[in-house]
Amino acid sequence: MQPFEVHILGCGSALPTRKHLPSAQVVNLRGKLLLIDCGEGAQLAWRHTGLNWQHITHVFLSHAHGDHVFGLPGLLSTMGLLGRTAPLFIHGPSNLQTFIEFTRTHFCADIDYEIHYQAIDTTQHQLIFEDRSMEVWSLPLQHRVPCCGYLIKEKPGLPHIRREMIDYYQIPTWAIGRIKEGDDWTTAEGELIPNSRLTTPADPVRSYAYCSDTMAIPLLAEWCQDVTLMYHEATYADAETALAEKYGHSTARQAATCARNAHARQLLIGHYSARYENEQILLNEAKEVFANTILANEKLRITL
Amino acid sequence: MQPFEVHILGCGSALPTRKHLPSAQVVNLRGKLLLIDCGEGAQLAWRHTGLNWQHITHVFLSHAHGDHVFGLPGLLSTMGLLGRTAPLFIHGPSNLQTFIEFTRTHFCADIDYEIHYQAIDTTQHQLIFEDRSMEVWSLPLQHRVPCCGYLIKEKPGLPHIRREMIDYYQIPTWAIGRIKEGDDWTTAEGELIPNSRLTTPADPVRSYAYCSDTMAIPLLAEWCQDVTLMYHEATYADAETALAEKYGHSTARQAATCARNAHARQLLIGHYSARYENEQILLNEAKEVFANTILANEKLRITL
Repeated sequence: MQPFEVHILGCGSALPTRKHLPSAQVVNLRGKLLLIDCGEGAQLAWRHTGLNWQHITHVFLSHAHGDHVFGLPGLLSTMGLLGRTAPLFIHGPSNLQTFIEFTRTHFCADIDYEIHYQAIDTTQHQLIFEDRSMEVWSLPLQHRVPCCGYLIKEKPGLPHIRREMIDYYQIPTWAIGRIKEGDDWTTAEGELIPNSRLTTPADPVRSYAYCSDTMAIPLLAEWCQDVTLMYHEATYADAETALAEKYGHSTARQAATCARNAHARQLLIGHYSARYENEQILLNEAKEVFANTILANEKLRITL
Repeated sequence: MQPFEVHILGCGSALPTRKHLPSAQVVNLRGKLLLIDCGEGAQLAWRHTGLNWQHITHVFLSHAHGDHVFGLPGLLSTMGLLGRTAPLFIHGPSNLQTFIEFTRTHFCADIDYEIHYQAIDTTQHQLIFEDRSMEVWSLPLQHRVPCCGYLIKEKPGLPHIRREMIDYYQIPTWAIGRIKEGDDWTTAEGELIPNSRLTTPADPVRSYAYCSDTMAIPLLAEWCQDVTLMYHEATYADAETALAEKYGHSTARQAATCARNAHARQLLIGHYSARYENEQILLNEAKEVFANTILANEKLRITL
């Protein structure tokens, strides 16, 4: 199966602590790297991934809070210093465009690659990017500033050829592509072999939802129905539910409720408030609602 | 003796590597903390110092390259989140003022402390700040952009009282302050005790020169005469002397020549190019000119 992995670079909130860096993740989808948020220190944490940061094609930013973007100027500079020439596409709320332009003008005057900014309407759930292998949808979130999550969906692949049947019917190589597209095969003797005997179904499509800073909103689960992996912020425990509402954040229980209602396969929580010495309380409260929950940490890699 | 310490937070150049963070230092002068440059990750490295970052009173920035300032937005935010109310004074070239203002406007709207920016004329060697305990002088440097080093000089302290003489002559407490200021003492019997018998000399004044990115310039040694500790960038080894000139940097040998000509007591080198797996070559070449040279590293603390 083609790679679809999520690497956590940072999963703390607000400020770096001894345990966590601020928010940043990389998604590796079939070798294309998508950077999602970029808190300070992301380029340091990057090294654990073993990935080549010149392979970042797109950056998706959730909102204009420093703990989600202060690592980006350094990363843009570093890619320039290391000789990047491929254009970089950055997607995010419109109020981050000036941040990128300011960085570009004042600190990256001599980089040799283009930066294209796409301002996202953070109030709309819509397709914002697609290519041959993926679709990326915006997820309108509710935070103190315009904020947007992202749903990354693999496009369906082609069915798999049953090698032994191809051999048995001596089907030539030139016909394989059409059989993958759904054609049947007629033998030299005129026998029609239905496509279903020649192929097995394509791999199931996988998807990843990045639900960044947000208070609990019911629509989110609808937009993320049947998602393979949901990352959902879980800044607070039950005891701080009022704080979560005040600051536009979620509790671990609210994150788990969203995952359950979305019928997600797995839930990954993060963006922990620094008050929790041990995040086990967040995990426990989430698991009461959605059992297949895990805690993010800075060296975590999840294969979907 | 009152503390005068330099803590290295980062001493690499251009981009963070596995070994070094970009430039950042803290000077602790009698409990006042001065932050000098602030590369990305400075607030992470800060923790090794055991210092309280709310005690930072002043920030001195050398120039508008990302590897010297990209850690500042995060630090400004963090101090706000942790409840700072004391004003912060930032000094640096005029072209960094918009960077601070941009950060303040877009990412620190709700901090509860004032930020005052003092634009430094990077072409003048002059007193830019003083208080009861120190003077800070600008050091005009030669780099690809306006660039400024800083010379931090302790002000002379008062002489020390010789406790045993005070006891012997039964000098009352109220007179101690005047004796420290230079007064003699007349006993009840009319005997004049000269000040020199009652005091020992004040501690020698100490000074620290931060010579950031610069090509070799002879005047620098004159401005830093008899400095206690000189930090001087040493990006390259002898073999890369042409590169040093091209990019406005110094070799380790040029740094050592500056320290020797300034009659510095000790030289600290840093801002190493990432090409050197082992910085021993830089140290060796510097020591050929100035023996009392040491290499900076991210956990180094030097007491002057």
